Amino acid sequence: MSDPMPFLSDNAAPVHPKVWEAMRAADSADNPYDGDALSAELDARFSDLFGRECAALWTATGTSANCLALGTMVQPHGGLVCHEEAHIEVDEGGAPGFYLHGAKLMLCAGEGAKLTPQGIAALIDPIRDDVHQVQAYAISITQASEYGRSYTPAELSALIDFAKDRKLGLHMDGARFANSAAFLGGSAAAAAGGVDSLAFGFIKNGGMGAEAVVLFDSERAAEVRYRRKRAGHLQCKGRYLAAQILAMLEGDLWLANARHANAAAAEIASGAGDRLMHPVEANELFMRLSPTEREALRAQNFAFYDWGDDAARFVTAWDTRAEEATALGKAIASL
Amino acid sequence: MSDPMPFLSDNAAPVHPKVWEAMRAADSADNPYDGDALSAELDARFSDLFGRECAALWTATGTSANCLALGTMVQPHGGLVCHEEAHIEVDEGGAPGFYLHGAKLMLCAGEGAKLTPQGIAALIDPIRDDVHQVQAYAISITQASEYGRSYTPAELSALIDFAKDRKLGLHMDGARFANSAAFLGGSAAAAAGGVDSLAFGFIKNGGMGAEAVVLFDSERAAEVRYRRKRAGHLQCKGRYLAAQILAMLEGDLWLANARHANAAAAEIASGAGDRLMHPVEANELFMRLSPTEREALRAQNFAFYDWGDDAARFVTAWDTRAEEATALGKAIASL
Amino acid sequence: MSDPMPFLSDNAAPVHPKVWEAMRAADSADNPYDGDALSAELDARFSDLFGRECAALWTATGTSANCLALGTMVQPHGGLVCHEEAHIEVDEGGAPGFYLHGAKLMLCAGEGAKLTPQGIAALIDPIRDDVHQVQAYAISITQASEYGRSYTPAELSALIDFAKDRKLGLHMDGARFANSAAFLGGSAAAAAGGVDSLAFGFIKNGGMGAEAVVLFDSERAAEVRYRRKRAGHLQCKGRYLAAQILAMLEGDLWLANARHANAAAAEIASGAGDRLMHPVEANELFMRLSPTEREALRAQNFAFYDWGDDAARFVTAWDTRAEEATALGKAIASL
Amino acid sequence: MSDPMPFLSDNAAPVHPKVWEAMRAADSADNPYDGDALSAELDARFSDLFGRECAALWTATGTSANCLALGTMVQPHGGLVCHEEAHIEVDEGGAPGFYLHGAKLMLCAGEGAKLTPQGIAALIDPIRDDVHQVQAYAISITQASEYGRSYTPAELSALIDFAKDRKLGLHMDGARFANSAAFLGGSAAAAAGGVDSLAFGFIKNGGMGAEAVVLFDSERAAEVRYRRKRAGHLQCKGRYLAAQILAMLEGDLWLANARHANAAAAEIASGAGDRLMHPVEANELFMRLSPTEREALRAQNFAFYDWGDDAARFVTAWDTRAEEATALGKAIASL
Repeated sequence: MSDPMPFLSDNAAPVHPKVWEAMRAADSADNPYDGDALSAELDARFSDLFGRECAALWTATGTSANCLALGTMVQPHGGLVCHEEAHIEVDEGGAPGFYLHGAKLMLCAGEGAKLTPQGIAALIDPIRDDVHQVQAYAISITQASEYGRSYTPAELSALIDFAKDRKLGLHMDGARFANSAAFLGGSAAAAAGGVDSLAFGFIKNGGMGAEAVVLFDSERAAEVRYRRKRAGHLQCKGRYLAAQILAMLEGDLWLANARHANAAAAEIASGAGDRLMHPVEANELFMRLSPTEREALRAQNFAFYDWGDDAARFVTAWDTRAEEATALGKAIASL
Repeated sequence: MSDPMPFLSDNAAPVHPKVWEAMRAADSADNPYDGDALSAELDARFSDLFGRECAALWTATGTSANCLALGTMVQPHGGLVCHEEAHIEVDEGGAPGFYLHGAKLMLCAGEGAKLTPQGIAALIDPIRDDVHQVQAYAISITQASEYGRSYTPAELSALIDFAKDRKLGLHMDGARFANSAAFLGGSAAAAAGGVDSLAFGFIKNGGMGAEAVVLFDSERAAEVRYRRKRAGHLQCKGRYLAAQILAMLEGDLWLANARHANAAAAEIASGAGDRLMHPVEANELFMRLSPTEREALRAQNFAFYDWGDDAARFVTAWDTRAEEATALGKAIASL
Repeated sequence: MSDPMPFLSDNAAPVHPKVWEAMRAADSADNPYDGDALSAELDARFSDLFGRECAALWTATGTSANCLALGTMVQPHGGLVCHEEAHIEVDEGGAPGFYLHGAKLMLCAGEGAKLTPQGIAALIDPIRDDVHQVQAYAISITQASEYGRSYTPAELSALIDFAKDRKLGLHMDGARFANSAAFLGGSAAAAAGGVDSLAFGFIKNGGMGAEAVVLFDSERAAEVRYRRKRAGHLQCKGRYLAAQILAMLEGDLWLANARHANAAAAEIASGAGDRLMHPVEANELFMRLSPTEREALRAQNFAFYDWGDDAARFVTAWDTRAEEATALGKAIASL
Repeated sequence: MSDPMPFLSDNAAPVHPKVWEAMRAADSADNPYDGDALSAELDARFSDLFGRECAALWTATGTSANCLALGTMVQPHGGLVCHEEAHIEVDEGGAPGFYLHGAKLMLCAGEGAKLTPQGIAALIDPIRDDVHQVQAYAISITQASEYGRSYTPAELSALIDFAKDRKLGLHMDGARFANSAAFLGGSAAAAAGGVDSLAFGFIKNGGMGAEAVVLFDSERAAEVRYRRKRAGHLQCKGRYLAAQILAMLEGDLWLANARHANAAAAEIASGAGDRLMHPVEANELFMRLSPTEREALRAQNFAFYDWGDDAARFVTAWDTRAEEATALGKAIASL
């Protein structure tokens, strides 16, 4: 039997040919760490992309990207509001506790793993303004959310107003930021809204091992550079990371790859009807599927994760084959 | 004028062709994180190499490799003995303070940046056995040392006996471990002695962004795996890191590359006479050179770092051209 | 109008005369820190009280007592299960995050702020055994609970079996341990069950500023002594803290004081009928009382805290006047 | 034989009668934590004493007082310059590593355990302004120093100018601040100079368990209050700590007690001649005394600590008997 058709995750996909090419082109020696010519381009390239001044640093993982950004906002004795199913709470091995020196994650409910001003207010307004209770310092949202939902510009705007009003920082975990930006029409600026920092993911979208920490308050960049080194994330051949990111930005490859993945997800969704547990607004699908139905799909050589007892998760990627997405959509429709 | 002849450092050298090849070969999708087939080979390959059972994990930097290993030995309220010029003390941005949750580096003198049982005893014996004073939990040594010196098997043996006697852990920072192993005759086991853990460096020796944390008490590996994730060092496409390491081990490429670099260093040393501040036992040279002499060398297109006011440091690498090393040796001899 | 009748809390009550007496008797100089004769008695006195060997250390606050004990059980990358309304989660300013170096509090539901094996299993069983998810290392329960409930010996026994089965540590926050012990019949051993550690509170029960960290695995005491110093909790005139604790143990003053407070609570409860939100099993009462009713009570000079919009909390103490408790009970009955 | 004459330390002396009196007077219930009337007086009383606005918080130990103040100045990735024999480095069990989340103590030489701008510059000027090296954020000095030396106003002024010039915070560990203030003429303001924060010690000078964290940038007080709670140092009956401090300030008891101790030290010094290793500028004496000489003194019933092999340390206190100091001075002179 041939290899299964892969809808498990986008996190182990191959590296895009243009990324390989850029890495090879970076092979001649340059200054170590982030002193090379490629790393030096990042600030300007991201400032252009977002249409506002920012600083951008590479790091090898989304976990470190999130935590390094959050470290600029949350004091060790403070708290960080996030969704109760946020990746930083559920799937990063306690990294925020490490990087933030014991600061507290304050878990907030919200439909589709998205936060709203109302939800956050319900969580933090009862906190007494006294030293016995940890005070919120910042909010972290995920774009696209852990259920593949995208915050619209209007939703982001409401969150930003709320954050400013409460004097809270606002961070965006953008492990699948490209997929949301593609879904929302292609503007990085619109998909990021006015957040203070963004962990801009490239790895799930065709990179190898480089994400960008984007700091819209570029005065915080110096602190993050020190903390990146302190966390052991300052690679000495940083040019290979910068090369990956620049290749993804070049000609908007990041957007093209995300559009491809999103289109495949939409194709699958077209056959899913009311099995869908969440609107498909990026490249992830969550569907009600009984054990028997899941077995039937696996018998047809589709690979995917169970999601609890009566559902499944499917993820598409930059390299998903259109015909396999079509086949999956049909298979689901035929159940 | 042509590119300068590079003796600044080995930390920005290109990636070895065989490493590139192995990375490309790893491009097809596999399980994410360290669940892939290549990562699964590491324990066995390093156990073979050292002739004793061990666990081995990849991580992207030497700083994280050291700190992850040290975390198995030093409690937050404990201390770690290292040389006062050790890389972990001087050049890692305070990473041990972060990873060890505030444990104390206890700084020890020693010729050539090497530690001896006598030196360590002089440091720790006066520490009172009471709660006001931080107690030592472990020792970290660097092979090759920060001055390019190698611990001989006899020296290692004395340190191991001492560590056991005092119930201290013994860690080896092996950023240039290959160079010491090559200098000492080519046996990894002999160059590591009986240490409890080793940060085995590949990046300076032809890799891109992968070092190995080698734990000779493999029962500690589970803890390190959790802490690697918590530190944001568990890359989701880990197969590309495992591929680098396996390529370096394959056919003892790590040793061949180190021998090349060492030979170049020896060639340069041959012209240095009593300018040498330390015996050359790896791939670094520290030489007394006046500002005028350094200027003369730079005028001949040699690139290197000043070492204080009256000396310079030269580092060779796996890709140093033999003719350039010869030329440098001659140029120094002619000063 | 005279002073209000105080049912706000037991945490600001005066110091018991016998405690004062003991402190004064400790005034002549002795060895500093915990090297004095009184501190030296603690291990034996608590071992007698609990009928099993233990080590006991003084510390000035319940927060530090809890955190120092928990530090013996929970690794920085691990998790601690506690009730979602536990004092350590809600009211200690994030102290566990600090003392446990970023370990995670895993919040568990449970009636009356009490945990059950079933509730804990429901929380931790879904945790995947992989490095992305924080693993539980220990459980913390509160005796009496945050709603004034007491764990029975049978409930404790079930929790201990569960903890052993899952290889989890079991800690007891005993800020009001005396009140539970009194409620359960007067046996400290029965009220503590087989927990691994106990923060035995004396301050709310007539002390000034001394609680005991009781470690039933006395081999962990050395580590806790180092960490107490590291946290700045090793007072140099420790004899005054030991004196407080010994005075409370002497002639079972701790039990007499708790019985007094419990009796006052029972007296108040006798007039409360189905206003009671929780059975009264220690010295706290939570009652449904409308704003108007609360106003009426305050007009009669009773002081207490609101508990949300439609309830109030009353706390009795070692010095509560019987006639005031009676008056409060009648006033509530008359509403 | 009668009790030995105590010159071991001032840290276990009895509590001054006026402190006892004030504590007893605080016995009636008040608001818990630092919400009581006595705690509320501290800011004003210290502002008066120093002639400039400040905030003042009680805490039970000098270690916590130092660390809480330092936490306002030093980021976790930063460094703190202190003397290589500073109490915070040598005798606080690694507390700064804990409270500052792994920040680095940068050890500076200096005669008499005192720092100078020149000494600090020699330490920090070679630090490269790059992320590999920990950057200094603040300086901690000890008044009186670990060798009983006092910084003069001129010396303090030079340090303050230096600190401002380098944008470093300046903290004073004042475990024996009163003794320096007494030595320098009695002005608290002169003895503190323009430091940013002071750990004002009372325990060694007649208190029981209360020191003051004095913050001359009172805007940092809110942060310190949160961190005090987080460290488990917010006692619920805080009024007993405030009472101690206020009693010491009342009628300048702190100064009278210190003058008494200093006078006793001067009396002893008068017989010491060139045995003195350091000028006596507070209440500690370090003297060259052979083992035989120390034995002779102990045979005369004087208690004190050895200081290495050929010296001894004597400490006087608020309760040192004048005749015993005289006797010791004579005994030394007669050796």
